[in-house]
Amino acid sequence: MFSESLEAGAGAVADHFDMVLSGFADLPVTHAMRYAVTGGKGLRGWLVLESARLHEVPQAQALWPACAIEAIHAYSLVHDDLPCMDDDALRRGLPTVHRKWDEATAVLAGDALQALGFEMLGDPRCHERAEVRADLTLSLARAAGARGMVLGQALDMAAESTATPLTLDEITALQAGKTGALILWSAEAGARLAEADLAPLTAYAQGLGLAFQIADDILDVEGDAATVGKAVGKDADRGKATFVSLLGLDGAKARAQTLVTEACDALSPYGKRADTLREAARFVISRRN
Amino acid sequence: MFSESLEAGAGAVADHFDMVLSGFADLPVTHAMRYAVTGGKGLRGWLVLESARLHEVPQAQALWPACAIEAIHAYSLVHDDLPCMDDDALRRGLPTVHRKWDEATAVLAGDALQALGFEMLGDPRCHERAEVRADLTLSLARAAGARGMVLGQALDMAAESTATPLTLDEITALQAGKTGALILWSAEAGARLAEADLAPLTAYAQGLGLAFQIADDILDVEGDAATVGKAVGKDADRGKATFVSLLGLDGAKARAQTLVTEACDALSPYGKRADTLREAARFVISRRN
Repeated sequence: MFSESLEAGAGAVADHFDMVLSGFADLPVTHAMRYAVTGGKGLRGWLVLESARLHEVPQAQALWPACAIEAIHAYSLVHDDLPCMDDDALRRGLPTVHRKWDEATAVLAGDALQALGFEMLGDPRCHERAEVRADLTLSLARAAGARGMVLGQALDMAAESTATPLTLDEITALQAGKTGALILWSAEAGARLAEADLAPLTAYAQGLGLAFQIADDILDVEGDAATVGKAVGKDADRGKATFVSLLGLDGAKARAQTLVTEACDALSPYGKRADTLREAARFVISRRN
Repeated sequence: MFSESLEAGAGAVADHFDMVLSGFADLPVTHAMRYAVTGGKGLRGWLVLESARLHEVPQAQALWPACAIEAIHAYSLVHDDLPCMDDDALRRGLPTVHRKWDEATAVLAGDALQALGFEMLGDPRCHERAEVRADLTLSLARAAGARGMVLGQALDMAAESTATPLTLDEITALQAGKTGALILWSAEAGARLAEADLAPLTAYAQGLGLAFQIADDILDVEGDAATVGKAVGKDADRGKATFVSLLGLDGAKARAQTLVTEACDALSPYGKRADTLREAARFVISRRN
């Protein structure tokens, strides 16, 4: 049920992007923008749609923040893949943007995707109340910037340039920014759209986000590049501290399992209606890519 | 009077940035962010402050959008200077961010400055009414993205890769995005804050923005690097079409003068209170850097 829902959500998000991007000039940078938002699992956008559905927010509204977060996520991947950052040739099993076009186009497409994310949240079709649009915008700007996602990336860079491996607390903090901040925003978005209590979705997303990164570290050890769709084994090659290096493979799996259980329990105020979100949490630690 | 006002505005913007950035972690990326917003003329931030003053909006409010536009402008310069873009070593007479730190830090600092721009517009201290904050955000997202500034940069890149020099119309369109969009937003911001008619400031900024770019092209021919604070003569070296190559030096100067006169006339509804904005328009075509 979750996999069908995820696929349907990704399809709706793709159609919405097509509609929005059809208004843009026909240039390499706009082609690269479209390419960058295509082919991912769409987990973040789906979390927006599903948390909105839980609050009976129409999908036609929720597609705006769902595309916004996918645009921000896509921009971060395009810039992360650049030669001066992770220098990746493959993303989602396809050439990265700077390989398919060039570095300048990748920088610009990422920059434009970030602006597009904020533009979509500002669209009155996202929500008729300006208070809600302003709340979504401010929270996303904080989640994406140097106190959220960019902070996580900067801590990651700092860690790579020092000889001392990070502690578990430090990796957890790094992760809360690098991956956690956007996942948190995505899950909370439905409650923001409905002007409802954020607390259950906040607790759910905190468990989910950390479990997601632990699962990524496990995949980097256990996965193969063809299935994962990107290079694996890079962390160990670099002698980088990960959840697996700190907790061991079994310890990391147990920790991820506990986090998923806690995330599912946090949704109790929603009862059975939140079962697909619970299934999503179980999926992220069992996924192969 | 304009130069004193510009200097005072830049000082107030710098103090406001200090206040905002003091809440950020002590990392290379946040140092690079601060460095990138330091030392510029601050024309865009000043246009926000001055257009706000014209509408009797308190400076304590106007400093939020003034810093927001300076953050967006600074991010665009940091990314423009990257080796894969213009590959510039000097900016404002000092090493560019990727030369002083490294490319990865420059990419991240630019990304974080864009997010910070939107975060500052979302701050309730910017305006108590969410409608106004949402309007400022949406208009800036459009001005900064692939229909505004990034569109201009992409057209510029496309022009460099073709053998046919651009026509005057094409350069004007390129310029309306690349430099014009942010200048337009800056000048309109005061009217947006006051929920007043944008038209006079729109007309003013359109003339000002184009005159500004023509003056830049003239400086690239007439200036010397020490005074201008960045490399000069690059356009001619690349055989790139500019306002000077299309209109001739005298023609370009005459066109800039006409645009400034039109810009000043557009402010007639404000009477003498807009004299500093008029002085600013005359300044941009007489500046040496």
